[in-house]
Amino acid sequence: MQTLHVNLGDRSYPIYIGDALLDRAEFFAPHIAGRQVMIVTNETVAPLYLSKLTAALSAFDVASVVLPDGEAFKNWETLQLIFDGLLSARHERGTTVIALGGGVVGDMAGFAAACYQRGVDFIQVPTTLLSQVDSSVGGKTGINHPLGKNMVGAFYQPKAVVIDTSSLLTLPPRELSAGLAEVIKYGLICDEPFLAWLEAHIDALCAVDQVALSAAIERSCAAKARVVGVDERESGLRAILNLGHTFGHAIETHQGYGVWLHGEAVAAGTVMALEMSRRLGWITAEERDRAMRLLRRAGLRIVPPTDMTPDDFLRYMAVDKKVQGGRVRLVLLRQMGDAVVTGDFPHEILNATLAADYQALAEQL
Amino acid sequence: MQTLHVNLGDRSYPIYIGDALLDRAEFFAPHIAGRQVMIVTNETVAPLYLSKLTAALSAFDVASVVLPDGEAFKNWETLQLIFDGLLSARHERGTTVIALGGGVVGDMAGFAAACYQRGVDFIQVPTTLLSQVDSSVGGKTGINHPLGKNMVGAFYQPKAVVIDTSSLLTLPPRELSAGLAEVIKYGLICDEPFLAWLEAHIDALCAVDQVALSAAIERSCAAKARVVGVDERESGLRAILNLGHTFGHAIETHQGYGVWLHGEAVAAGTVMALEMSRRLGWITAEERDRAMRLLRRAGLRIVPPTDMTPDDFLRYMAVDKKVQGGRVRLVLLRQMGDAVVTGDFPHEILNATLAADYQALAEQL
Repeated sequence: MQTLHVNLGDRSYPIYIGDALLDRAEFFAPHIAGRQVMIVTNETVAPLYLSKLTAALSAFDVASVVLPDGEAFKNWETLQLIFDGLLSARHERGTTVIALGGGVVGDMAGFAAACYQRGVDFIQVPTTLLSQVDSSVGGKTGINHPLGKNMVGAFYQPKAVVIDTSSLLTLPPRELSAGLAEVIKYGLICDEPFLAWLEAHIDALCAVDQVALSAAIERSCAAKARVVGVDERESGLRAILNLGHTFGHAIETHQGYGVWLHGEAVAAGTVMALEMSRRLGWITAEERDRAMRLLRRAGLRIVPPTDMTPDDFLRYMAVDKKVQGGRVRLVLLRQMGDAVVTGDFPHEILNATLAADYQALAEQL
Repeated sequence: MQTLHVNLGDRSYPIYIGDALLDRAEFFAPHIAGRQVMIVTNETVAPLYLSKLTAALSAFDVASVVLPDGEAFKNWETLQLIFDGLLSARHERGTTVIALGGGVVGDMAGFAAACYQRGVDFIQVPTTLLSQVDSSVGGKTGINHPLGKNMVGAFYQPKAVVIDTSSLLTLPPRELSAGLAEVIKYGLICDEPFLAWLEAHIDALCAVDQVALSAAIERSCAAKARVVGVDERESGLRAILNLGHTFGHAIETHQGYGVWLHGEAVAAGTVMALEMSRRLGWITAEERDRAMRLLRRAGLRIVPPTDMTPDDFLRYMAVDKKVQGGRVRLVLLRQMGDAVVTGDFPHEILNATLAADYQALAEQL
């Protein structure tokens, strides 16, 4: 078991990473201030882990809310189920909300915790690789709006994050791959040596090797914690974590939430960011191809939806949160392992990137 | 024009109080970081002040959302209109939301600002006495839930508060009285000398005397700023601001939101808190009567709804945010000008308070 500390002053919290932590009360109890606990999970995760976690917390007054599963339900109506559950069970300001599930459960439970009675305690128990390396770290919570993803939310830090790597044994392979997209991202944006490690271990990771996964999660969380520790509110550096996300959000929005998994959209978006960085002369075609190969070995689609036009992309990108003063800002690679956020590029390079033939790029790998 | 500073570290902000500030850009412009401004108001206030404020901000890109008026609309559906407006007008993370209206507009616009893209800037322009002395100061924002008032929200500080006292000239007398309930509250909880000042000026205040109102607003805001400065997140002292609110919320919930004005419910709730403090032997019957007389001279009902039983009160009070460990905590007066928050009282005293004959108490004044 490893413990990582996210340093955010009086909002600092630990991340516990290890095998079979879910039924060990000692990782939870020190972070639960009152006697009431509300576990928020979904109908896929509940049959697997809800009774186990509930049993581990038998010293507390535990209630639970089981949400429908999927990004398509990351909206106000579903959030309301959490408030209904908290109020029906008369949960007070001293209650602790525990998110048991993937990124959607974490985002919604975290936002509910941020808003319920103007803020109650919150513990994350991410059960997907994506949420373990991404959405459980950094305090971003929220829901989607019909006009844009994650448009309504809060920055809200958990009291603790408990990552039980054995939960990945029940994860569908497609979701494991989606998580690996974010793991690879950390190598690309700020940890070039990690890319070589990933190339050596990508098959073990895809085979759900617990030792390799633990190492990859720890290194990813440490990278994210480093970035978030410098820039909690995303005024600057933190935005590099969104490599591939501006293109990826456009893909998710165009396809309809939940059709492409978030990590899948990010992977295809990352390929577009790599291609644009190559067109700007910042990375070589070989470096782009190396990253594309790694993403493909992780089981990911590396070709954006072929039915999306450049105009489709531009339309969705215009409401992205990284827009400043009407100008689209993108996360690009200055070099491998070194990302920047910039709006300072010729618009024709962006257009050419949106119009590029990714199918052909994939075929020549 | 007076300026009051609310000291909250890097979330400090000024409160400007004076006559005809609404059309003077210099009070707004220094607090608007970008070029986009979204004015949130309601259908009562819009015809009176929206064009005036929009004209004053002609240097910016100003859009507006006009909400239906009333506490009954302080819910998710109405909040959604603000998000819809922001997204339809493509407002970015650098936008500034301005709340132009009473407490309901301020609570909703503030909560929308807290959540939109996980937080954008926010300026309060309270146009009712209640919101000027209460909800514009302290950073409480939120909406109601069918099972409880203000159950979903955030602590979120404005960049500035602009109080134009001339807006009270258009305020219905009933709402002026509701605001005076909160003004009187400050005297009761932490400023006993202010009670004597109020007894001397209550008729001038009811007659919308601008000089008297400015002085009362300044003294009320200063009192609240003092309390909030010590305890921003309501972990302790701040709860004394809720004198009369636990009983008052029960009244509002039972009657249906918006039937009694918030200030009216607080006034009747304050009478109940006075009576309970008297029954505990902390204040005298004469002191209780003095406060009741002042509330009545302010044009307020001092008798709780006669159709509410003690059980009605207890049922609604059980979901109040001040409940800790299942025990109801109340704001009571140790003496005039000195409030405490306590759950340490014999339950029969609470029951007797709930069952007391307030009609008879009012008649003997």
